Amino acid sequence: MRAVYLLVPVLALVGCDRDEPPSPPQPVKVILVLHGGAGVLSPDEMKAARRENGEPVTREDYEASLRKALTAGYAALKKGDNSIQAVEAAIRVMEDDELFNAGRGAALDEDGRASLDASLMEGLMTGKGEGKTDPRKRAGAVAAVHHIKNPISAARAVLEMNDSRHVLLVGEGAESFALTDAMQKKYKIEKVPNSYFWTARRLQQIRAAQGDRVQKQSRISDSADQRFGTVGAVALDNRGVLAAGTSTGGLTNKMRGRVGDSPLIGAGTYADDRACGVSCTGTGEVFIRHAVAYDVVARMLYQKVPVEQAAQETIESLPDEHEGVGGLIALDQKGRVAFGMSKRSVGMYRGYVTENGDVYVALYYNEQPKRIK
Amino acid sequence: MRAVYLLVPVLALVGCDRDEPPSPPQPVKVILVLHGGAGVLSPDEMKAARRENGEPVTREDYEASLRKALTAGYAALKKGDNSIQAVEAAIRVMEDDELFNAGRGAALDEDGRASLDASLMEGLMTGKGEGKTDPRKRAGAVAAVHHIKNPISAARAVLEMNDSRHVLLVGEGAESFALTDAMQKKYKIEKVPNSYFWTARRLQQIRAAQGDRVQKQSRISDSADQRFGTVGAVALDNRGVLAAGTSTGGLTNKMRGRVGDSPLIGAGTYADDRACGVSCTGTGEVFIRHAVAYDVVARMLYQKVPVEQAAQETIESLPDEHEGVGGLIALDQKGRVAFGMSKRSVGMYRGYVTENGDVYVALYYNEQPKRIK
Repeated sequence: MRAVYLLVPVLALVGCDRDEPPSPPQPVKVILVLHGGAGVLSPDEMKAARRENGEPVTREDYEASLRKALTAGYAALKKGDNSIQAVEAAIRVMEDDELFNAGRGAALDEDGRASLDASLMEGLMTGKGEGKTDPRKRAGAVAAVHHIKNPISAARAVLEMNDSRHVLLVGEGAESFALTDAMQKKYKIEKVPNSYFWTARRLQQIRAAQGDRVQKQSRISDSADQRFGTVGAVALDNRGVLAAGTSTGGLTNKMRGRVGDSPLIGAGTYADDRACGVSCTGTGEVFIRHAVAYDVVARMLYQKVPVEQAAQETIESLPDEHEGVGGLIALDQKGRVAFGMSKRSVGMYRGYVTENGDVYVALYYNEQPKRIK
Repeated sequence: MRAVYLLVPVLALVGCDRDEPPSPPQPVKVILVLHGGAGVLSPDEMKAARRENGEPVTREDYEASLRKALTAGYAALKKGDNSIQAVEAAIRVMEDDELFNAGRGAALDEDGRASLDASLMEGLMTGKGEGKTDPRKRAGAVAAVHHIKNPISAARAVLEMNDSRHVLLVGEGAESFALTDAMQKKYKIEKVPNSYFWTARRLQQIRAAQGDRVQKQSRISDSADQRFGTVGAVALDNRGVLAAGTSTGGLTNKMRGRVGDSPLIGAGTYADDRACGVSCTGTGEVFIRHAVAYDVVARMLYQKVPVEQAAQETIESLPDEHEGVGGLIALDQKGRVAFGMSKRSVGMYRGYVTENGDVYVALYYNEQPKRIK
């Protein structure tokens, strides 16, 4: 069994008092890590869940979806793409997958409409930044968009739009920017009707939430599945540059125009090559108010602690709630990975791929990621 | 002269190698500090500037406007309002004042429209945060709104809307929330046509910028006055709770839907009673990418440095540009104030009021704030 351990990177299962297996020393470098949200279905919920085609949803489906996204990001890195492109490739797969709350399958807002947010950031720290545009820490984000099939690609388009220096575009402005012919072609951005994003499961959730609201004056569902869906990834490319990205449909029954942490640099996403790349999932407002993604980076920069400790201390500094407030993934420049989950979480869909292509995934809180073929 | 020094609080003129007077030890507690943006008109620009009524604009006009805002915030604190209300009171005065790029007098976007952003945050750290809503670090923000006379009051309405936990509302969603009869009454929020915000000076600037754009392919004006207007305030109330807020019209000729740092918690605004409250002004995208407001707080929390040093180190970590990238104000729980300005700044409209009501203001980079009556 020791030979197996040697293939497993150090993995900090952060925020966990429960009896997870001890982490072995890190022999392998991780180059891509991702999450599919902290809203993991409990085994009972999963038994009741159905795909759009009526087929049941199994644990193996989630594992296969995670593997597909990891493989897409890994393939991008192996053909020489940079970390931004690898993060985009992995997230596009999850946006297109109805199982996750991003792109198709997104949660619906109080109008019954999918309103999508995404962001992308590069950790590059070279260049003094004097002159017209600071070359460090490029970032791009879109929020409250309704017709962009892959919001992460629109975020990349904003990131690469250096001349204007804009980082965050919202609503119709974001759509008119991203849906020009030139942008659609360059970034493979497609315009879709809002109904493209809908699934029977999300329609059912919004109806249940709005029923609740009338009776209980509660705007937001308490089910973790409805609050915590979001996808994200962090990659490390062969230049040693980190990138992090996040994409979400947000909260079920959120108010029109509500924007959570996912498209906000410093809240849901951050990357700094001196520290790590971070992508978050959870109750977005808690992550905004505690500047969670940047807090992990700041602890590494100013307290000189390793990524696992920084991630753990950040998660522990947050309030905890019924079913937790969410989780995060982090990856440093040496390829060390940390998963943070609040103590009451059911889990977080998560996985990573090592430099040599080994794929590991996990769902529930106290699982050590296992290698899958 | 030593008696005069005893009335002057310690003031860190951050990022400054030039010969400003040495700061005396701090004998006086500051309870409200504000800025009117880093886009200070040079003496020559000020000579050419005109008010809407055609009258010239003088240095004394800016000093009087700063004093009016400081006095409004001070009056709120003295009648027992909390720091959120004091920040709101000070910022409303500046939003209503055509001299600043917030509310009336806001910069115009590429559509020739004022598109306004504001945020407000409380630094309160009591309460464990277990349960439905975390009582710590409440925050509220609106972005890309076009018809709300005082966006800072809409941000306060979002902050106090605890049950739904939303922090950031954008566009029409923000307006439909803030412009209900109940909200308009409770928070003195008024609906205005977009033309309310326009001034001859901003119309002239947008025309000049769009002329440039056709010829030079440049979206953003280089003039600091057009890039760096923003207003903000930090207050300390008699409970010892800090609050910080920021309001802006953003960049002249910005793209439709562009959102800068001002409404983003962690970027343009942050408050944490264990550290300080911060409000920023400058090239918003730089402040987003470097998580500037939270970076000041993180340096205080994790490096245990005082507010002046944290503010200085944050500003020095940013790229510098022609006419600087902007500035910030910070106030800690002891009433110590710090002003940060990037080295090439012309200055920052700024001022503070002490516990006993003395008002100090300054405009240019190397000025020590002077007491005005």
